[in-house]
Amino acid sequence: MTYCVGLKLNAGLVLLSDTRTNAGLDNISTYRKMFFFEEPGERVIAIMTAGSLSVTQTTLGRLQEAIENPDADETTSIMKAGSMLQVASIIGETLHRTTSEIAEQTRDLNQQASASMIVAGQRRDGEMRLFLIYPQGNFIMATEDTPFLQIGEHKYGKPILDRVVTPETSLADAQKAVLLSMDSTLRSNLSVGMPLDLAVIARDDLRISQRRRILDGDPAFAAMSAAWSAALRESFGNVSL
Amino acid sequence: MTYCVGLKLNAGLVLLSDTRTNAGLDNISTYRKMFFFEEPGERVIAIMTAGSLSVTQTTLGRLQEAIENPDADETTSIMKAGSMLQVASIIGETLHRTTSEIAEQTRDLNQQASASMIVAGQRRDGEMRLFLIYPQGNFIMATEDTPFLQIGEHKYGKPILDRVVTPETSLADAQKAVLLSMDSTLRSNLSVGMPLDLAVIARDDLRISQRRRILDGDPAFAAMSAAWSAALRESFGNVSL
Repeated sequence: MTYCVGLKLNAGLVLLSDTRTNAGLDNISTYRKMFFFEEPGERVIAIMTAGSLSVTQTTLGRLQEAIENPDADETTSIMKAGSMLQVASIIGETLHRTTSEIAEQTRDLNQQASASMIVAGQRRDGEMRLFLIYPQGNFIMATEDTPFLQIGEHKYGKPILDRVVTPETSLADAQKAVLLSMDSTLRSNLSVGMPLDLAVIARDDLRISQRRRILDGDPAFAAMSAAWSAALRESFGNVSL
Repeated sequence: MTYCVGLKLNAGLVLLSDTRTNAGLDNISTYRKMFFFEEPGERVIAIMTAGSLSVTQTTLGRLQEAIENPDADETTSIMKAGSMLQVASIIGETLHRTTSEIAEQTRDLNQQASASMIVAGQRRDGEMRLFLIYPQGNFIMATEDTPFLQIGEHKYGKPILDRVVTPETSLADAQKAVLLSMDSTLRSNLSVGMPLDLAVIARDDLRISQRRRILDGDPAFAAMSAAWSAALRESFGNVSL
């Protein structure tokens, strides 16, 4: 499993992913699930992945090959696509093709290999966009009404996002919100694990404005988690039925 | 779907269930999912149900028939069983038999009919017990380390329980905790719905100590929910990263 969450706010995009992959409970590993494609000042694209590692690695490999291909054009390379919508279409098509091929290879296994992705970014003179791409290649976009998208183990961390995130949320508060959402998930699902990757793309910055890897035992994250637990318990004491 | 949660505390047992059943999104109904079997002063048993209504209703009907059978004995009637463990065994066997029969009847439908249950209670001179009974009839018990059990849509409401519930939690706080856990679930899953059924069985009371149906728009529940949202947002503001 995995937990990745993306926020699209007036002030920018905030992304957080864990790094745990597992094939069964007795075979866990650490793999980055957040990837950046950047031409600073021109475009910035971030991709977060959930699902079968064979599908996500192959899809990202193919996206990279398409970028490096000398014949690359706006229909094949996400670094040349004319809009974020076209970027999402290219990623969706690549993901769908890869998922289909691997499903075909593994169809005797009675075991599904599929993946979904969150894609965030902005092109010069374009809007910031945040997409959730399904294994079939179709996608949805974050909107004013629903400014966040999640993939993987999304349920434990949703209540806090529902309560505090609006398009007006600041980038600082948004980082707290996604980290607290992750904290609830880490406590409840063993298949979501540290370290974490956090990234911020400020509006019109057209680059990764901030990126940070949060290691297990990170003092700031541990302190925030403890403060939040204490604050929750205190709030709980103050609410009356 | 459904959400039912049971707490086993030093001070007693606290139970909460919703009442929504659905066959698809366009066919929803209200059914009680909490049932009591009581001989005050001698024994008290509460059962909460999740899953296929045909399975849960038939199982409860059979348990009731077994109680009323003139030949009922401690191996067939939950009102005569010698311990809560035997009560759980009888319920588990009845649930498994019903699940198996209905699975056999519906096997051409490519659609599973199954159910799980939470069973809580105490017999005179016995310990309080809280069980989660699986569709196959086997079961687990709440312990000091894990004083709560959930069935149905359990994920949204788990973080708050993880943070505030211990065996030392008072019955008043426990009622708040299960209601806030339900509140998070109601916000996120349409297939969990009001009204709610809340029950308390105080230790050694050997009867349903309190029971209450909470209707949609209940002022106390709405006020608690609003106060909790406000407290969460305030706590969120106070925690620093």
